[in-house]
Amino acid sequence: MALQPAPKKVVLAYSGGLDTSIILKWLQTEYRCEVVTFTADLGQGEELEPARAKAEMLGIKPENIYIEDVREEFVRDFVNPMFRANALYEGQYLLGTSIARPLISKRLVEIAEETGADAIAHGATGKGNDQVRFELAAYALNPDIRVIAPWREWDLTSRTKLLEFAEANQIPIAKNKRGEAPFSVDANLLHTSSEGRVLEDPAQEAPDYVLQRITRPEDAPDTPEMIEVTFEKGDAVAIDGEAMSPATILTRLNELGAKHGIGILDLVENRFVGMKSRGIYETPGGTILLEAHRGIEQITLDSGAGHLKDSLMPRYAELIYNGFWFSPEREMLQAAIDASQTLVSGTVRLKLYKGSVRSVARWSENSLYSEAHVTFEEDAGAYDQTDAQGFIRLNALRLKLLAARARRLKG
Amino acid sequence: MALQPAPKKVVLAYSGGLDTSIILKWLQTEYRCEVVTFTADLGQGEELEPARAKAEMLGIKPENIYIEDVREEFVRDFVNPMFRANALYEGQYLLGTSIARPLISKRLVEIAEETGADAIAHGATGKGNDQVRFELAAYALNPDIRVIAPWREWDLTSRTKLLEFAEANQIPIAKNKRGEAPFSVDANLLHTSSEGRVLEDPAQEAPDYVLQRITRPEDAPDTPEMIEVTFEKGDAVAIDGEAMSPATILTRLNELGAKHGIGILDLVENRFVGMKSRGIYETPGGTILLEAHRGIEQITLDSGAGHLKDSLMPRYAELIYNGFWFSPEREMLQAAIDASQTLVSGTVRLKLYKGSVRSVARWSENSLYSEAHVTFEEDAGAYDQTDAQGFIRLNALRLKLLAARARRLKG
Amino acid sequence: MALQPAPKKVVLAYSGGLDTSIILKWLQTEYRCEVVTFTADLGQGEELEPARAKAEMLGIKPENIYIEDVREEFVRDFVNPMFRANALYEGQYLLGTSIARPLISKRLVEIAEETGADAIAHGATGKGNDQVRFELAAYALNPDIRVIAPWREWDLTSRTKLLEFAEANQIPIAKNKRGEAPFSVDANLLHTSSEGRVLEDPAQEAPDYVLQRITRPEDAPDTPEMIEVTFEKGDAVAIDGEAMSPATILTRLNELGAKHGIGILDLVENRFVGMKSRGIYETPGGTILLEAHRGIEQITLDSGAGHLKDSLMPRYAELIYNGFWFSPEREMLQAAIDASQTLVSGTVRLKLYKGSVRSVARWSENSLYSEAHVTFEEDAGAYDQTDAQGFIRLNALRLKLLAARARRLKG
Amino acid sequence: MALQPAPKKVVLAYSGGLDTSIILKWLQTEYRCEVVTFTADLGQGEELEPARAKAEMLGIKPENIYIEDVREEFVRDFVNPMFRANALYEGQYLLGTSIARPLISKRLVEIAEETGADAIAHGATGKGNDQVRFELAAYALNPDIRVIAPWREWDLTSRTKLLEFAEANQIPIAKNKRGEAPFSVDANLLHTSSEGRVLEDPAQEAPDYVLQRITRPEDAPDTPEMIEVTFEKGDAVAIDGEAMSPATILTRLNELGAKHGIGILDLVENRFVGMKSRGIYETPGGTILLEAHRGIEQITLDSGAGHLKDSLMPRYAELIYNGFWFSPEREMLQAAIDASQTLVSGTVRLKLYKGSVRSVARWSENSLYSEAHVTFEEDAGAYDQTDAQGFIRLNALRLKLLAARARRLKG
Repeated sequence: MALQPAPKKVVLAYSGGLDTSIILKWLQTEYRCEVVTFTADLGQGEELEPARAKAEMLGIKPENIYIEDVREEFVRDFVNPMFRANALYEGQYLLGTSIARPLISKRLVEIAEETGADAIAHGATGKGNDQVRFELAAYALNPDIRVIAPWREWDLTSRTKLLEFAEANQIPIAKNKRGEAPFSVDANLLHTSSEGRVLEDPAQEAPDYVLQRITRPEDAPDTPEMIEVTFEKGDAVAIDGEAMSPATILTRLNELGAKHGIGILDLVENRFVGMKSRGIYETPGGTILLEAHRGIEQITLDSGAGHLKDSLMPRYAELIYNGFWFSPEREMLQAAIDASQTLVSGTVRLKLYKGSVRSVARWSENSLYSEAHVTFEEDAGAYDQTDAQGFIRLNALRLKLLAARARRLKG
Repeated sequence: MALQPAPKKVVLAYSGGLDTSIILKWLQTEYRCEVVTFTADLGQGEELEPARAKAEMLGIKPENIYIEDVREEFVRDFVNPMFRANALYEGQYLLGTSIARPLISKRLVEIAEETGADAIAHGATGKGNDQVRFELAAYALNPDIRVIAPWREWDLTSRTKLLEFAEANQIPIAKNKRGEAPFSVDANLLHTSSEGRVLEDPAQEAPDYVLQRITRPEDAPDTPEMIEVTFEKGDAVAIDGEAMSPATILTRLNELGAKHGIGILDLVENRFVGMKSRGIYETPGGTILLEAHRGIEQITLDSGAGHLKDSLMPRYAELIYNGFWFSPEREMLQAAIDASQTLVSGTVRLKLYKGSVRSVARWSENSLYSEAHVTFEEDAGAYDQTDAQGFIRLNALRLKLLAARARRLKG
Repeated sequence: MALQPAPKKVVLAYSGGLDTSIILKWLQTEYRCEVVTFTADLGQGEELEPARAKAEMLGIKPENIYIEDVREEFVRDFVNPMFRANALYEGQYLLGTSIARPLISKRLVEIAEETGADAIAHGATGKGNDQVRFELAAYALNPDIRVIAPWREWDLTSRTKLLEFAEANQIPIAKNKRGEAPFSVDANLLHTSSEGRVLEDPAQEAPDYVLQRITRPEDAPDTPEMIEVTFEKGDAVAIDGEAMSPATILTRLNELGAKHGIGILDLVENRFVGMKSRGIYETPGGTILLEAHRGIEQITLDSGAGHLKDSLMPRYAELIYNGFWFSPEREMLQAAIDASQTLVSGTVRLKLYKGSVRSVARWSENSLYSEAHVTFEEDAGAYDQTDAQGFIRLNALRLKLLAARARRLKG
Repeated sequence: MALQPAPKKVVLAYSGGLDTSIILKWLQTEYRCEVVTFTADLGQGEELEPARAKAEMLGIKPENIYIEDVREEFVRDFVNPMFRANALYEGQYLLGTSIARPLISKRLVEIAEETGADAIAHGATGKGNDQVRFELAAYALNPDIRVIAPWREWDLTSRTKLLEFAEANQIPIAKNKRGEAPFSVDANLLHTSSEGRVLEDPAQEAPDYVLQRITRPEDAPDTPEMIEVTFEKGDAVAIDGEAMSPATILTRLNELGAKHGIGILDLVENRFVGMKSRGIYETPGGTILLEAHRGIEQITLDSGAGHLKDSLMPRYAELIYNGFWFSPEREMLQAAIDASQTLVSGTVRLKLYKGSVRSVARWSENSLYSEAHVTFEEDAGAYDQTDAQGFIRLNALRLKLLAARARRLKG
């Protein structure tokens, strides 16, 4: 393929940290292009204003610096729809990193269109899933956008070379960034993931200092705490009776989960690009939310809807993990899932204690639970036990025909 | 349909308890038939010899009393195959009751054939899943067997009537059986379930006294315990390096889980017969086993096998829950699952602490984890990051075509 | 269960034929209840007014006789949504009978509510699928409705007894109904099914006289006929450029298919009640419609949407076959399917000839087909062939790791 | 990534045609490597010995020329297992090209190992599926093999350049290869596909001259022909009672299908690499085989096995289409499918006529069809119609509870 001309203006997903500052400078020097920075507050727990100062220092014009708090949009339009599905990748992972990427790409593409930029850039490496998620989302929203992934392009392939480049370009290097970090961290309102280096051998336990936000279960309070989460149409809307915005609820659940040591996962997973990786995931609020959502579904969904959801979930989770949030098939599955949630409203009581969360009670005006049907007490006519005989016999009919054939063939 | 003639000889699933003793006597009086009793040690934790004495007292001939320890068969041929699938019904239930029923039916049918009996009988009610499981399994194994379900037939429809019948027939009534039990219990080596009466309102927390075998997490040891479980071809074969038989392993895991408060589940589930019920399930060893099995699969299964297993699991679990263990479709799914397990061997280290179990390390000669591929260190050539570009571009192609269409249609 | 009191007023699905006339009279005599008749024009090709005269003759009050043309509703709200899914039961059956039942039940329940009736009745036997479909639909719409299925209740269990009952009750018997019909027929706008008696042995070919509406392929025109079917949002809206109502389109396609011998199926299928049955199905227009819908989807759906639809289809078809049209899971699947159809618009040209229909050309403003990408001509830059290398390498990565493990274990 | 050194010895999939002869020469000149040719008789209908002569002429040593008849292996180990699944890609395509590729790759890799070659090469372009299929299969069998895909590497990107290269290298050019062929053809025993150039516009009908092996239906015999296909364990083993080898059966079915105009498909499909393409597929024998296999399954599989197969099929077909024949998940699905086929034995009678094939009768010692159950005649006790009431009521229970909730909420 013919070499592409250099981009004229690039919107960069910019954290203000060393790596994306190097990328910023590299874009300026390599392509001699104008750079627009986008810094989002996704609840990663860092101040954003230093990113503005740093961008300015690196020569970005004030009107080219975008800093936004997208936490409510993140929870309302991405996290909540995903939790309606009870999504777990490979049975265990709550998709905390995966679900944030399409939102960032969406804003990068929108800002590119607003500012007349012809490309976007991100700081994900060529080995991971995030490059895929960023880029699939971007292409799905704008087929003509160009995506620059410096980690796949440049020759700054070692820590030493990166630091040299930073120094040569007057990029300030925080003291603790001089040496190699013992592991790499990504965070947002839903989770914190740690991976790499000291975590690379899955036969070695992760050291305690890896934990970024969750108290070790052993250090959590000795007394259980009970909370009540209220849902409307499948989304959490209140804690202990107090209505809150989507992001506020997740923030509050994060505090509760973190305090009680809830939501630590040590996982070896299959990346979309074909290799296995090991990560430590901390998802305090999300772990509570999943248990609570399952609890309210237990009484508000019938088996037809519930079992169909269960069977669709693995595919849905895989799509999000692989970066196909903006795809027809994810939207089709979402349509099916959302259609099941119109009456998933009510309240679940949960017990939080030293690393675990368990729903222990649940109630709803929409409950399908019928004590009249299930009771051990003498029937008042809701259920006729003799119906079971016909039910069983016709369910058994094909099995009997199979068994009769087996006997016939045996002679 | 014409009324059937009375059965001549009936094999009864007999626990030795009050209810099945009443059934025994009722069969004798209602049908004037010979009764054969089958009492199985499935690990429910009760002595079996009293059942022999009681059966004899109720007039059963010694040669008609079958008492068997089936614990090894139970774990080897039923529990282990099921755990290879990571089976969870409705996302949470480990199927402890469901998986025991087909084994009991299998022995009932075999004993009927050995003794020339023309029917079998069980003590499950007309409202639950167990009647379905017993009967589907029986019909699948012998299409001509007759199944008698006294709870669907007789008029002993209240506790008072049952006790009157017992007294009238000289069936001894244990002191604690005079009153209504506050809830109903079923147990085997895999789990204990409690349901009914005080548990019937899902909005009410279960009282602590419901727990039959697991220590309350609050009362569990304050110090975590680390264990190592070794797998061969998907089945646990050793704990902390010590090889054990299938049933011994599950017994040992039960002790460990029970001690550490692991495996309590408070669930409202959908019964196959159409109603919801609420149960408290205690599955101490099984909960550890599931986490351990997932841990070893993380490094020994690739994503193709793992994701296919995940997508098949809900259907597999539903089949077992609904009583279709002996069905072509369960066997087909088992064939697929077992085909994935030939190299699922290795060891997982787990941390047990106050209600939770987490795998923290895992290793195997069959590991697919490749540090050379995933490493954050400079590449030694195992992986070419530029491959990611083509990978992403072709995965994006259809999304780009969709986006281009959307733009074209917008004009 | 206690016997129910007799119903006071019953809405009967009444065809005007001998069997439902007997049911009408039986309801009057057995339950001494008022009967309301509902006769629907579903396109079965029979005059409805004779049903009115007969109902009146049997003593039904004029205000209790409902005769309705529901063909448009049938195609618009039932047939078209189903064809959006490309539904085929057991790979081959177009569900012609299954899809009509829920509509009939819906009207029966609505008329019961309008007329204050406490029950509905249908003429389906106790062996088939239709009883299940009628009753599941009715219960899903009105949980308190009572359904009377005379064929499961009465003792008119032979042809002789039926005719005796008819004669004793002055029900006129058409000459050709005196003897046993050689097979049984059901028809509506979508299809005609024939089964029973001469068709009961699946090893015997069906005689030609079984065909009710389709010309034998051997007798069809010797010249192929080309037609063009236009779709909007997944539904056929025009033939050869002429816009028509839903029922008119299906009627016209039926004429075309019947003329060209298209849509004959000889099938042994699995009934929901557990047995196999053999039927001859004639679905002339539906067979063309399925081929045409697939044709337009080929260019308007991407692989993500199309493959998800393919994977959901068997479950969707099974739900309709089994009678679960009015169920949350069918509605969830429909939501997913409908979400895929918003741009399934365009035109397909089809060739009809002596028993087969084949799409031979298709075009659409929404086409995703890109000649620029697929062309054998030299590339103009739409597609970079070197992308394929990275795509393949990363797709292969896990396979390589598996192969490397296999070699390592072999030693 | 560092440039790889040139390969020393390459095994080339060699047809003897112009394109692969150019590749052969290009490998010799570009890499100065030794070339081994592999020419397989997959039933494509061409003489193989001319390929030997041509290879020799191009300087290949006799011991480096591999020419093999793999037709029996092709049908026995690839086609037959696939047909056990009733595999159809995107609802219509019988996967004729897809299924041949893994066999070729398997032999290329084996010959590379035998001859000490360090690479293999194929003649598939960078736009299609075949490159993916060849390479995924190769890497799955030998993780260290190098694959050379000249079409993705060289600069012979136009017909003119190719012909110039051929002339410059004394490669003989058949007269009819001077000009551009109007479309491109691939063939093997299962099918012939045509695509490209005159077929590139899916809105244009394919000209009749595209058909390579099937008679136009209009030109097929005016008289239907009846044949009987016998199956054992899911595989066709005899036609009209005459036992034949796998490849002989497919050859004979091809003759029959071709004669009667059966198996023409005009399809726009989604390639794995992300674009749509349009092809004309001719699969005469395979189309008959699919219909016959479905026919025998109708009476030998119960609904549990059959419906599970239906639900797995789309994924299975997609795997084969995408090139994952040698993958754990395809093998898992195959294990499930094969487990269902042990009793799929018996005979199907089919009617072949002017473009269509229909099964019209089927019989088997393993038949599950029970006339005693399904008969319209008075029951002899095989089936109790009253069982249906309980069956329906319990299937309806959850629907009633949903409906009761809906009424309650409406007030």
